[in-house]
Amino acid sequence: MVLSDRQRLDWLRLIRSESVGPRTFRSLMNRFGGAAAALDALPELARQAGRSVRLCPLVDAEREFESLRRLGGSLIALGEASYPLPLQAIDSAPPLIAVLGRADALLRPSVALVGSRNASAAGQKFTARLARDLGEAGFVIVSGLARGIDTAAHEASVASGSVAVLAGGLDEVYPPQNLPLLRRMLEEGAAISEMPLGWKPRGRDFPRRNRLVSGLSLGTVVVEAARKSGSLITARFANEQGRQVFAVPGSPLDPRAEGGNHLIREGATLCAEAAHVIEALEPLLRGGHDFRQLPLVMSEGVREDASQTLWDELDLPGVPAAPSAPLPEPQLGMEPPALVDGADGEAVRALVMRLLGAAPVSVDELVRASGRSAREINHTVFELELDGVILRHPGGALTRIAP
Amino acid sequence: MVLSDRQRLDWLRLIRSESVGPRTFRSLMNRFGGAAAALDALPELARQAGRSVRLCPLVDAEREFESLRRLGGSLIALGEASYPLPLQAIDSAPPLIAVLGRADALLRPSVALVGSRNASAAGQKFTARLARDLGEAGFVIVSGLARGIDTAAHEASVASGSVAVLAGGLDEVYPPQNLPLLRRMLEEGAAISEMPLGWKPRGRDFPRRNRLVSGLSLGTVVVEAARKSGSLITARFANEQGRQVFAVPGSPLDPRAEGGNHLIREGATLCAEAAHVIEALEPLLRGGHDFRQLPLVMSEGVREDASQTLWDELDLPGVPAAPSAPLPEPQLGMEPPALVDGADGEAVRALVMRLLGAAPVSVDELVRASGRSAREINHTVFELELDGVILRHPGGALTRIAP
Repeated sequence: MVLSDRQRLDWLRLIRSESVGPRTFRSLMNRFGGAAAALDALPELARQAGRSVRLCPLVDAEREFESLRRLGGSLIALGEASYPLPLQAIDSAPPLIAVLGRADALLRPSVALVGSRNASAAGQKFTARLARDLGEAGFVIVSGLARGIDTAAHEASVASGSVAVLAGGLDEVYPPQNLPLLRRMLEEGAAISEMPLGWKPRGRDFPRRNRLVSGLSLGTVVVEAARKSGSLITARFANEQGRQVFAVPGSPLDPRAEGGNHLIREGATLCAEAAHVIEALEPLLRGGHDFRQLPLVMSEGVREDASQTLWDELDLPGVPAAPSAPLPEPQLGMEPPALVDGADGEAVRALVMRLLGAAPVSVDELVRASGRSAREINHTVFELELDGVILRHPGGALTRIAP
Repeated sequence: MVLSDRQRLDWLRLIRSESVGPRTFRSLMNRFGGAAAALDALPELARQAGRSVRLCPLVDAEREFESLRRLGGSLIALGEASYPLPLQAIDSAPPLIAVLGRADALLRPSVALVGSRNASAAGQKFTARLARDLGEAGFVIVSGLARGIDTAAHEASVASGSVAVLAGGLDEVYPPQNLPLLRRMLEEGAAISEMPLGWKPRGRDFPRRNRLVSGLSLGTVVVEAARKSGSLITARFANEQGRQVFAVPGSPLDPRAEGGNHLIREGATLCAEAAHVIEALEPLLRGGHDFRQLPLVMSEGVREDASQTLWDELDLPGVPAAPSAPLPEPQLGMEPPALVDGADGEAVRALVMRLLGAAPVSVDELVRASGRSAREINHTVFELELDGVILRHPGGALTRIAP
């Protein structure tokens, strides 16, 4: 199957329409047999449910399509030969992924390496060794381009093949400091995103993104992770997706080892060297696990009753197209902001965590109470969101999750 | 069941007779119904098998009995109420154990903590925390009194109850530096040995001893252990004895973590805190596992045909009584030798390992080839034997086991 340009635009319009996430997209396709028909039917369907829906205008979809083309990227549709099979097998597989770099890297067998942004030197060293050894064994390394473990994993697999899954649009690289690394990765690897160009990643986009990191990969290795962290979310996704989870052990005296040790106690395979991953995944490479055989209702054209799942609460929220102001000459990345790192960063983190509790607090209140600059607080809050230790509520108020 | 003094002496004579190990002892008891009858029958039995056997003279057994009494110790016989049930359940349970200190400590639930002699500071710190927490939870800590992890485990459980299993006689404490620690342990805990007083431990006595460390305990925790080490032998014994094996994880970059990580991959329970041990062993404490129900043929007086197993190669070799020269005033311990420790010790170890290979080499040859003193080489060879990386053949020639 290959979509025509017109079909691809319809698909893009549908997935960028209000309230249409990957699962709803699939239901609509199954019910109406195609994106154009679904777009036609959606307003009436919404009206019947007592709701309204904002469809993505054709012009917005065309603009995204064209901007991506000028950036050197392309859109791959679920079911096309260039869509990675392991990703196709997950039940929230994005209908379209935007790809920069070598799309064929997505078709090679891959392993996700994820871990702490505040990684230890030893953790980064081990990650680099593991990524290099897995790369030599023929695996593409998938990660999230974050600082720390992700960066070490990508750096060590630039030459053998490295894929970054971004939480924002392909032109919204986070952290921006890793833009040069990403550029080097595109020679043998790729960057992908399900988000529209121009989409700045929010805290909640990162866990959503993590399902793609694990979903692209035959297995996921967690290298250093605190007990509550995005890496453990990725591991949970991997497990739910039926993929093998590996965790690197560490001393019980090292808080960075808590997540990995916990995963091992929960049944993850202990990984102390690349061979432990290779020997576990080799049977999959020899055809022991055919992702094609996993159910993919949509590709079979079955029309199911989509009404139950149309606005299924389990679906990921739809992501509208970027604001309709025409994008200027699209370019990869943005200006690196000055980050609050190192010892002072730790102090601000600790301060913000102390100031937050179960009662919602606004960022403005945090700035006042902390005596720190709004930029410092905004950055720190963002990082804490990424860590999954604080929660941003509608309206922007913050509460603390971790004890 | 309580043995009379006369019976106890007969038991002691029988187990100290040539070629009679714990399994043969059990077979003989089953066949002849008692130690006295077995002693009577043994010479003829040996003659029929075309062998001869040297029985332990009564006077030697009396001397050992009396020396132990003067040392403040006692002999506990398999099947007596004061014999620890978990140990009774192993198939090579010693018929008699010599005990110093509080014999009742042997009847409390216990956990073995074992690990590297060359332990890291972090490993010792973790061990101390684990031993203290397990002690507070009511467990006696069992270990082997070696340097490193064993020492940390015993030190931290002096007040709550700590049991040392010695590889030599109770008056042959190794390493002698730990004699003061052992003395403190005897207040709330105990030292036990299956070996005669005066028996200086040889390299092969340590793995033999390790079966008692695991056998006394409901579970065994390996804290830091190289891939080939006595601690892994203890873990293997624990597993064969149907006891739970726990291992403390560590960074794959730390060679001291190799053994523990390997054990976890093989199925050992990851232990990062005392709760992991306690929650696993609690069902045993609540009576979920009754060691009394394990087969103990001997106590049932069943007479089996012992001929097949009489000189069974699987049996542990018999240990004769100490040389018959009368022991002087028996005392705990010997003069501490000057040890070769630290950086120079490491250098000598590496040198000896380089000099050894598959072809047998004598200690004298090692001394000549190394240019080191006989004392240094003897000490180093002994330590390498303990590590299980070299093998001492009959006649004393040495070969290297580890690659």
